[in-house]
Amino acid sequence: MKICTVPAVGLDDINNAMRILKHKARKTPLLESDVINKSVGGRVFVKAEPTQHTGSFKFRGAFTKMALMSTAERARGVIAYSSGNHAQGVAAAAAHWDIPATILMPRDAPKTKIERTQNLGAKLVLYDRYHEDRHAIMTGLAERSGETFIHPYDDVDVISGQGTIGVECVQQFHSLGTRPDAVLIPCGGGGLTAGVASALKHHWPDTDIYCVEPEGFDETCRALGTDQPQENRPGARTICDALQSRYSSLTLAINKSMLSGGFSVSDESVLQAMRRAFCDLKLVLEPGGAVALAAALDGKLGRHEPSILVIASGGNVDPDFFCRTIHPGSISSTNTK
Amino acid sequence: MKICTVPAVGLDDINNAMRILKHKARKTPLLESDVINKSVGGRVFVKAEPTQHTGSFKFRGAFTKMALMSTAERARGVIAYSSGNHAQGVAAAAAHWDIPATILMPRDAPKTKIERTQNLGAKLVLYDRYHEDRHAIMTGLAERSGETFIHPYDDVDVISGQGTIGVECVQQFHSLGTRPDAVLIPCGGGGLTAGVASALKHHWPDTDIYCVEPEGFDETCRALGTDQPQENRPGARTICDALQSRYSSLTLAINKSMLSGGFSVSDESVLQAMRRAFCDLKLVLEPGGAVALAAALDGKLGRHEPSILVIASGGNVDPDFFCRTIHPGSISSTNTK
Repeated sequence: MKICTVPAVGLDDINNAMRILKHKARKTPLLESDVINKSVGGRVFVKAEPTQHTGSFKFRGAFTKMALMSTAERARGVIAYSSGNHAQGVAAAAAHWDIPATILMPRDAPKTKIERTQNLGAKLVLYDRYHEDRHAIMTGLAERSGETFIHPYDDVDVISGQGTIGVECVQQFHSLGTRPDAVLIPCGGGGLTAGVASALKHHWPDTDIYCVEPEGFDETCRALGTDQPQENRPGARTICDALQSRYSSLTLAINKSMLSGGFSVSDESVLQAMRRAFCDLKLVLEPGGAVALAAALDGKLGRHEPSILVIASGGNVDPDFFCRTIHPGSISSTNTK
Repeated sequence: MKICTVPAVGLDDINNAMRILKHKARKTPLLESDVINKSVGGRVFVKAEPTQHTGSFKFRGAFTKMALMSTAERARGVIAYSSGNHAQGVAAAAAHWDIPATILMPRDAPKTKIERTQNLGAKLVLYDRYHEDRHAIMTGLAERSGETFIHPYDDVDVISGQGTIGVECVQQFHSLGTRPDAVLIPCGGGGLTAGVASALKHHWPDTDIYCVEPEGFDETCRALGTDQPQENRPGARTICDALQSRYSSLTLAINKSMLSGGFSVSDESVLQAMRRAFCDLKLVLEPGGAVALAAALDGKLGRHEPSILVIASGGNVDPDFFCRTIHPGSISSTNTK
């Protein structure tokens, strides 16, 4: 058990984000399955962020960030790069604020993600991810337009927005008359983990919180126990496209002060978790959104945790990938990815 | 608008079922999608019963019925026939009460449904649906065992249990500070419709409530406007396996007094609704669970309803059928159903 006393992101910040997001973000449900409970040997509560605006938690941080910008700054608009969930979260939040948003996306990003971001009213700038530097393109564009760069995780306001998930969970567990013994949170750059852990540690200081990363991309996990900088493993591959970022010094500092440890999960475990979410929770999860459930199903916590909170962070998965996951036998071999 | 004054199932019955189901049934979420709202031209709230125990609303009615049996009666156990959701609902409720349950299922029912019902601890009796009479088999078994037959809908207690969905919706809309102008409810035998409509009409007497049935199985819809008995159309086929029952005199009487009308939807509309639920709600729906959403997406209510409550009744669908629905192009032609 790790008791945290360093409020790197304060409860005030997160409570302020709660006020900002009231009636703007959705209060997402806490789901449970008897079949999953039985197989894990405890109760597993799944916070279903796929049901948030745009299908992932990213709207929370993006909207909070925009609310905390000055009126003049906000009026000039926002800019971000992402091929996935952050793109849609920023675009949707900008649409709510009725301000311009520019999103840089790789030219070869999935068509559906490009279309969805465009449908949210964002201006798309496509680039060649193999020959062009997205950060340089973004900086050039922002200098000319005056748009503010929205970082996906290296930002206290963004982290505070993601932290509202933790406050909602506290309220939901209060209604259920129980609380979890352990919490599992998907971790890419670490903003979701930092925000949720900051919120939960204020309310439940004796609850163990763990990050979960894909195998080969477990640099936060490794960094927790050392002062040496850690990198994702060179050449590593994962199906979790949303969890390939490296921590920032901000997210690592928060997570070091909050977490009891971390786990990594294999692609096969992630696919199995997606199948279980389909069958037993009736919830669509994308690979990156399923890592924490995968860790619970893998028994990473052992059999001694009677109650586990799992954050399911997103559900933006292409139908063909989803079908190859839930029913691999029936897919023709011409469809590989 | 239809204002109902005949409490065929009283608010007392339904409130009593609320007390019975407290901490037993799950309070299922009310989901919403910006994309669906935009395409319908209003707000569509989806009550997600796929996240209930066993993946459909059926647990509510079965558990309520068992709670209202005498202790001696309950101890002798229960018996039901069903190839799908009612089977699992009865089996799960009996397991909660720790009483024996016998479920008659057709020998050719989907393997997963047979396994799931068995995993819930029920005793299975398989029969040949083409050459044997399930009601005769059930009656014979019940006479010997003393087990009580649990009808899927022709029972005031069962209907009261399903009605708790309506009370939850009223509470959830109250939290959101709004209420729907119209309600769409899937209808097979009519128990779900009768229960939910009875609850809602007590709280929102001026809200229009409609049943939704598959094309060819719209006998309730047709019976609403006439005193002549109506049948499902002979030889009709539908992918909505859960909605092929005919009304009983009890459910029809309640629904006649409560509903403003009814709609029928095509298989193609149902498949489209399942796809939209996958993409935009991240929710797994079975065909019968998707008919009310299909009616909303089809614009059956016209464009004048700013706010619609849709009941999504279940999500028990086989992976291969689901894949052929959400991504038809990628399925090999050897897998047809």
